[in-house]
Amino acid sequence: MPALRKKPESRPGTRRSGSRRGTSSEGPVRPPSVVVLESPEPVLEGGRFPIKRLVGDHVEVSVDAIRPGSEPLTASICWMPPGSEETSEALLTAEGNDHYTGTFLVDRPGLWRYGFCAWTDRYGGWIDSLLKWSKAGEDITPDLPAGREILEACRARATDQEYGTLQAAIAAFDSDPREDLLTRLQSPSVREAARRLQPRADLVGPEPWYTAWVDRERAGFAAWYEAFPRSLGPSDRAPASFRQAEERLPEISELGFDVLYLPPIHPIGTTARRGRGNSDAPGPGDPGSPWAVGSAAGGHEAIDPGLGTLEDFQHFRQRAAELGLEIALDLAFQCSPDHPWVHEHPEWFSHRADGSIRYAENPPKRYKDIYPLDFESPDREGLWRALIDLVALWAERGVRIFRVDNPHTKPFDFWERLIREVHERFPDTIFLSEAFTRPKIMYRLARLGFSESYTYFTWRNSSSELREYFTELSSAPLREYFRPMLFVNTPDILSPVLQRLGRPAFEVRAVLAATLSPLWGVYSGYEFLEREGVEGSEEYRDSEKYRVVHRDPSAPGNLRPLLARLNRIRHEEPALRPGSELGFFPVDNAGLLGYYRKPRTPGRPLLVIANVLPERTLESLVSVPLEPLGLAEDSEFRVRDLLTDRIYTWKGRRNYVKLDPGVQVAHILRVEP
Amino acid sequence: MPALRKKPESRPGTRRSGSRRGTSSEGPVRPPSVVVLESPEPVLEGGRFPIKRLVGDHVEVSVDAIRPGSEPLTASICWMPPGSEETSEALLTAEGNDHYTGTFLVDRPGLWRYGFCAWTDRYGGWIDSLLKWSKAGEDITPDLPAGREILEACRARATDQEYGTLQAAIAAFDSDPREDLLTRLQSPSVREAARRLQPRADLVGPEPWYTAWVDRERAGFAAWYEAFPRSLGPSDRAPASFRQAEERLPEISELGFDVLYLPPIHPIGTTARRGRGNSDAPGPGDPGSPWAVGSAAGGHEAIDPGLGTLEDFQHFRQRAAELGLEIALDLAFQCSPDHPWVHEHPEWFSHRADGSIRYAENPPKRYKDIYPLDFESPDREGLWRALIDLVALWAERGVRIFRVDNPHTKPFDFWERLIREVHERFPDTIFLSEAFTRPKIMYRLARLGFSESYTYFTWRNSSSELREYFTELSSAPLREYFRPMLFVNTPDILSPVLQRLGRPAFEVRAVLAATLSPLWGVYSGYEFLEREGVEGSEEYRDSEKYRVVHRDPSAPGNLRPLLARLNRIRHEEPALRPGSELGFFPVDNAGLLGYYRKPRTPGRPLLVIANVLPERTLESLVSVPLEPLGLAEDSEFRVRDLLTDRIYTWKGRRNYVKLDPGVQVAHILRVEP
Repeated sequence: MPALRKKPESRPGTRRSGSRRGTSSEGPVRPPSVVVLESPEPVLEGGRFPIKRLVGDHVEVSVDAIRPGSEPLTASICWMPPGSEETSEALLTAEGNDHYTGTFLVDRPGLWRYGFCAWTDRYGGWIDSLLKWSKAGEDITPDLPAGREILEACRARATDQEYGTLQAAIAAFDSDPREDLLTRLQSPSVREAARRLQPRADLVGPEPWYTAWVDRERAGFAAWYEAFPRSLGPSDRAPASFRQAEERLPEISELGFDVLYLPPIHPIGTTARRGRGNSDAPGPGDPGSPWAVGSAAGGHEAIDPGLGTLEDFQHFRQRAAELGLEIALDLAFQCSPDHPWVHEHPEWFSHRADGSIRYAENPPKRYKDIYPLDFESPDREGLWRALIDLVALWAERGVRIFRVDNPHTKPFDFWERLIREVHERFPDTIFLSEAFTRPKIMYRLARLGFSESYTYFTWRNSSSELREYFTELSSAPLREYFRPMLFVNTPDILSPVLQRLGRPAFEVRAVLAATLSPLWGVYSGYEFLEREGVEGSEEYRDSEKYRVVHRDPSAPGNLRPLLARLNRIRHEEPALRPGSELGFFPVDNAGLLGYYRKPRTPGRPLLVIANVLPERTLESLVSVPLEPLGLAEDSEFRVRDLLTDRIYTWKGRRNYVKLDPGVQVAHILRVEP
Repeated sequence: MPALRKKPESRPGTRRSGSRRGTSSEGPVRPPSVVVLESPEPVLEGGRFPIKRLVGDHVEVSVDAIRPGSEPLTASICWMPPGSEETSEALLTAEGNDHYTGTFLVDRPGLWRYGFCAWTDRYGGWIDSLLKWSKAGEDITPDLPAGREILEACRARATDQEYGTLQAAIAAFDSDPREDLLTRLQSPSVREAARRLQPRADLVGPEPWYTAWVDRERAGFAAWYEAFPRSLGPSDRAPASFRQAEERLPEISELGFDVLYLPPIHPIGTTARRGRGNSDAPGPGDPGSPWAVGSAAGGHEAIDPGLGTLEDFQHFRQRAAELGLEIALDLAFQCSPDHPWVHEHPEWFSHRADGSIRYAENPPKRYKDIYPLDFESPDREGLWRALIDLVALWAERGVRIFRVDNPHTKPFDFWERLIREVHERFPDTIFLSEAFTRPKIMYRLARLGFSESYTYFTWRNSSSELREYFTELSSAPLREYFRPMLFVNTPDILSPVLQRLGRPAFEVRAVLAATLSPLWGVYSGYEFLEREGVEGSEEYRDSEKYRVVHRDPSAPGNLRPLLARLNRIRHEEPALRPGSELGFFPVDNAGLLGYYRKPRTPGRPLLVIANVLPERTLESLVSVPLEPLGLAEDSEFRVRDLLTDRIYTWKGRRNYVKLDPGVQVAHILRVEP
């Protein structure tokens, strides 16, 4: 349905009832409409938070509209693009049972507003009654003027095409035989024109306005690669500079990643610096953890002198962009004891009774190289302002993706304000929430504005765990605002299944991450099967956080070809794009997981079958979900394995698979036409 | 947990965030708390409508409370009785995953308010950290003063018993060995006292206040009997008066009903009066439909002179009350052409182009004996006021139950205001909504205030229809506000299954209605198996709406014994009281329906198994729901059929039933201890 671009009518005092009203002692207000709107969708917490969408999405909306009595209603969706007060409107489709549905297109990033309207379809009610009276043999002559009057009001507001339709209908009152008149008056074109153009009796809406935050596509579809720039040098003898690291960008680009995420690039403190292997006694060459931000060389606004200058960083960023890699920076809002703020703004930190600043602690551990900021500081406003300005500064410098470190330890309101203010100036900014905490806190951070979120993926390994978790994430209301980012590893998480099972586990976890969500990520080293952990933990032994690592892209048997293929498949297959349907199907052997992805746009569906804890060869019959794939019972169809380019001919629902960890841990099968 | 009776603390500017806030240009407001409350339950549409409860209910509430970081929270429920600003409070129980639950008792009718609070449990966080540091061998001496300070603040606000506990803990700082001190500080009694009494850091709540409308028990538990008083005379030769009808009250009382609902008792118009059999040409003795309200003798405030005077009515009502029958009146807000308002307030009616008043019509039918009121009249306020005053008048006269005719044809706001205003003066008033219309309209009427509602019960006959419908009605959110009233028949609905199948259908539909909901009703004549319908419709042939009917309570084979027994069972069995659990269980034969009722209060559960379309004998194995009934697998147990007093011994899950329509159409089995 084409959109009408107009200001919707409204009348004073007309609004959806908000609460029990007292008897009207407030003077002559127009009474509330008899029409009521209920259950608007999608709406989060009554409109408290925006839903999230991507540029190019058609937002699917629905509402229930009711009124007493038997007259029909017309309902519409109204919307306003970011920063605009101009309203567009489209009529909704009546689906029966008082339910109305429709869509509107969001074609640029920013905060869109939308609201629902409904009004009494006086013309529809009139013509329906007229036809019944006429059929019962009653004289309808006295009833005709009322309908004619409505059509004349419509004609006065009609566009060229509708004008002709309405003009002909109105003329028919004077000229046509009664039967021809009735045929014309009940025609779909006249009814439709009247629905749109008649005076809107009993109008409700479009207030309250709900909001949709619309991101550019990369917020919902991207493959991330995390690398310490100081490790991107020619050797592990010294930290690399940005100029050196630049040379290694093509290697990363070849893997097909879209985003290169760098841990903090700022000066690193020396006081209480952690040494290699997280030791208390750093060696003279130990570079320290980049998350201990700040030194005499500067704070969060500065570049680690070892990496180079701001110009070097910008050169690196430009070169990455040319190779299709957008840079993401880390927002770690904490300070080393050498951060300039420690002296400039002592009030931004918590103090102990003896006046010393509290370092980070998580009993029984103390992190003496890090001072947390006190977000409830007496100079709360100054601190919050400074942090928001920092992000704006980096955005001005061209960085529009931020991975946020531990947002769940700072106030929700801080993030809501920071993201809102940055988005007002830079609506293309993307924020990834690194909150590994309890689910309700993670979800709150997503609702209040984070574009995407780390998940429990690394701790979901069995087929039932994966099925349950991704069913939750892909259902309402989460699917309206929580975009799961699946990192297969991070500098802090080397999951036990990788440590224990090695290569087949690395392979299957990459396939799962790349196909279960449109957002996935790899921390460098994964492709080289690095899996030496601290005994009984999920930490890396000799973590890169405290040293420089050199990796050889030509190392034999590495997973670079698999990562490159997965990223190519993701770019080629609409079924792996945002908004495509995810469903699980039965596999007889519980060691295997089966799911399908079905594109929302035209395109072929995929079936993924994975040996999720690949300790041994598993074989099984699987039950292909014929209905969602549009396949007929017992039909023969071909599937192409996008990982091997092998083609299989399958038939009907039940088909056979065998996955040998030594050969292939998963199928990504495209259903061929 | 005992309730604290107190005003909860609050601090200026502390409230749950309501919408995206601008940067603070409004002066020095206290910043919002870091604590956030989510998903309060039960709440309807964000608090737009009250939930419904009955006097004596323990309202079960829950909420999620989160805050950034790792400090624990304490949450509470606060509530205010009707008309009071005094707040009571009880701590909630932490159930894990940031979820908190609790209850509060509502012990009188009216509008109760309740809200949630949460605050940081500083003491809990402090003692937990202290124990970890101590275990790790760190010196905790510098950390001790902070906890002592909290306990001293608690002591200052403690009651006698808590005072002692706190005093001992504080003294221990000075006197006890370190290990004894820690044992004392982490004891449940000290922790609990601190949770309640410590200064409430980061407090949120209790705003916003949600509301619960609490009714007297009869609004949720009652058996209704509908009878035309004019038919309660010694013969059908003339309409009975109230004085005559009084003589028949014991007959109705014997059946165990709680409410006697009378169709309109007002003067009946003579203009266009409908004759016997709904004829256009009334005979001289035809009494007319009571729903054509108003004549020269008066309108809705008056009593039909044929029935007697107001004093006669009051005498009738008193006599009924003595017999345990409360009178319900009919609110039919429409007028006969002879109603005094037609002349006094012509503006309260719709007019045609020729100036004549529009009568009720539903194309292709016209109801010339009835003028609908125009609720959007230019004198809307005058009309609404007059109608509300009418209800208040009858409430003043002692009537506190109203069955409302066709509420779905009048504005929602009208009913919301009427019910609110009447409830403010007469909180024990009960309104039954007679809205046979689309579901969302019926549910809206229930949400806006109707105490109970007619349902689709008469059109739900098969076991799958009944299971589906009553599962919907007993699930959230409907169970929070929609109280289903199951009438087995009405003057307008003689369902096809009754017409076709006769006695066994009458029996089984009574058993279903009496046991599927705590509210059920019978329109007189049902017990005499009256089932002559208009061919192909669900109307009674020769309807009582247009004539006087005489019924003989001693007629052979009538269902009076069954109705009396059903009502006795309902009064004796806690499982049939409001709030008891309804669940369906599998029965192999789809012609039989099986469900259980499990009391919320102590008492024995019931199993009902019914031959729902009793055309022939059906036998089946049923699968007894052992888990909800608390029965062990393979255990033997006795069930007593409350309809026949027969006792069966059953074993385990699978048991056999046989229901022969000629003998018994249903079991109501009480599981014996």
